[in-house]
Amino acid sequence: MLPAFLFLLASTQAFAQTDSLPSWNDGAAKKAIVEFVKATTEKGSAKFVAPEARIAVFDQDGTTWVEQPMYTQLIYCLERVPAVVKAKPELKNVEPFKTVLSGNREAMANFTMPQLEMIVAATLSGMTVDEFNSEVKKWLATAKHPRFDRLYTDLTYQPMQEVMKLFRASGYKTYFVTGGGQDFVRVYSEQIYGIPPEQVVGSAGATHFGYDKSGKPNLVKVPKLLLNDDSAGKPEGIHLMIGRRPVAAIGNSIGDKQMLEYTQAGAGARLMMLVHHDDDKREYAYGAKSKVGTFTDALMAQAKKNSWNVISMKDDWKRIFAFDK
Amino acid sequence: MLPAFLFLLASTQAFAQTDSLPSWNDGAAKKAIVEFVKATTEKGSAKFVAPEARIAVFDQDGTTWVEQPMYTQLIYCLERVPAVVKAKPELKNVEPFKTVLSGNREAMANFTMPQLEMIVAATLSGMTVDEFNSEVKKWLATAKHPRFDRLYTDLTYQPMQEVMKLFRASGYKTYFVTGGGQDFVRVYSEQIYGIPPEQVVGSAGATHFGYDKSGKPNLVKVPKLLLNDDSAGKPEGIHLMIGRRPVAAIGNSIGDKQMLEYTQAGAGARLMMLVHHDDDKREYAYGAKSKVGTFTDALMAQAKKNSWNVISMKDDWKRIFAFDK
Repeated sequence: MLPAFLFLLASTQAFAQTDSLPSWNDGAAKKAIVEFVKATTEKGSAKFVAPEARIAVFDQDGTTWVEQPMYTQLIYCLERVPAVVKAKPELKNVEPFKTVLSGNREAMANFTMPQLEMIVAATLSGMTVDEFNSEVKKWLATAKHPRFDRLYTDLTYQPMQEVMKLFRASGYKTYFVTGGGQDFVRVYSEQIYGIPPEQVVGSAGATHFGYDKSGKPNLVKVPKLLLNDDSAGKPEGIHLMIGRRPVAAIGNSIGDKQMLEYTQAGAGARLMMLVHHDDDKREYAYGAKSKVGTFTDALMAQAKKNSWNVISMKDDWKRIFAFDK
Repeated sequence: MLPAFLFLLASTQAFAQTDSLPSWNDGAAKKAIVEFVKATTEKGSAKFVAPEARIAVFDQDGTTWVEQPMYTQLIYCLERVPAVVKAKPELKNVEPFKTVLSGNREAMANFTMPQLEMIVAATLSGMTVDEFNSEVKKWLATAKHPRFDRLYTDLTYQPMQEVMKLFRASGYKTYFVTGGGQDFVRVYSEQIYGIPPEQVVGSAGATHFGYDKSGKPNLVKVPKLLLNDDSAGKPEGIHLMIGRRPVAAIGNSIGDKQMLEYTQAGAGARLMMLVHHDDDKREYAYGAKSKVGTFTDALMAQAKKNSWNVISMKDDWKRIFAFDK
């Protein structure tokens, strides 16, 4: 029998030889990731990145889980409307709440941005942060995706889970930098992705510190936007919340453009990638050429020009979800 | 000779038996810290805190380094005024810049809050975040404290450095939660305190993502306050930037009250402490009963009522600075 410390050595070496991205097909995307991680963490490498500077940022919706037919958080907000109206019956006959209560999905799809903002404000504020956390947790435990008939938290992309694990195993801190609500994503990010709340940068509303009726201190969510974490807001949010420039950034849409540009503008080795939704059989196809969605032709052109790696879900991923064969 | 792995074991055990707070006198404060860390990290302890929830927050000015006769950052701002006026000569005869240029310290001490805000805005914005970092770094390398004739970064409290190290050695993440500028503190926090930029919560201004003349992406600091990280702003900032309630919080002033209240309001074991400046020989005395400063009598009364530990710099600390005998 080997002494314990030799077992440790042996298992470390075994790990290094194992395929850490088993859900990926061999190809340029997989190669780029594996080689980047190796080059930035191997001692003596010309591209070595100091451990404290190893920051990898990931968009969430459409990059690490499904964002169709609608952002999960928006579905949450719409499904919270009945509870909000129950507490404030005066909203019953007021738009856009009236339409939400009618269940007319076609009409809801045509909501204007100000109408959506009214729904978001009404459903994401007015409660303490603890109450909000438990409401979201409760919803996530039962709400299911209309097409896949699975919990939303089951719909993460297994290949991206592997990438996040590979980065972490190599001393990187993995962050979400999402246009979604920071408080919403934080509820499940640790359990579902291994990303702790303090490593979630997202669109953030203000809170108000005060005391409840019994005198107990609390934080109440208020409808005031502090950070719109999309497009230019992403590098701005990264600076606000992290304070370092990432060395790796992965997104999937035009809203991730500035985050990738900011990442690339740093000195030394950098990895910029975009997930391209081109697989309508296993997931959805709404990328370049589809004329819908947020992976525009202009983004594809910039990816080419800037040497950003484009990940084809169809070609690069052996499977999409953990529950796929 | 012992095999290497036995050496490791041996040194771990030696560490456990060593006094991890050698700059502290034996007393209630030291005992409270050591027992809290032990109780929250020892397996099987009734007060055990899960590793991911181990968040300890520290105020900076007056808690981990000298804040007299003026906040270090404010001295930086005043000393930056000549460079700002050189770039914008039209400010030369405009108050409060004119007074700063005159060098009249008595007049400067009487600046109103709006005047100070003008100086802060003029000296902390208008440059890229990279330019700001290198300006601060350059200043810190030479600027000296008027009384101690030492670099400001030499004026950290050795006993608090030990507390931060003890927390980290026990699996805690240590954070600054400071009324000072987040970007300012981040420049030196990692090197001086072992606290990385992403664990600095402070008063934060906005940045603007754009492109310089050559088309390179950059972030420019703009004079818009996103977070006033003082008083109620401290728990609000903790929620924004960390997203978890701390289990330990140490401050030194009325501006830390809400942070300690918020920490205490959580379930399970909690540690709340206040550094009391009562040592005018080795540092300064501006605490309760001194009728100056920010450790008010009301704060002392609340500390007693809420069972917050008060650290007497005079009695609890064997030495204040690393360079003390």
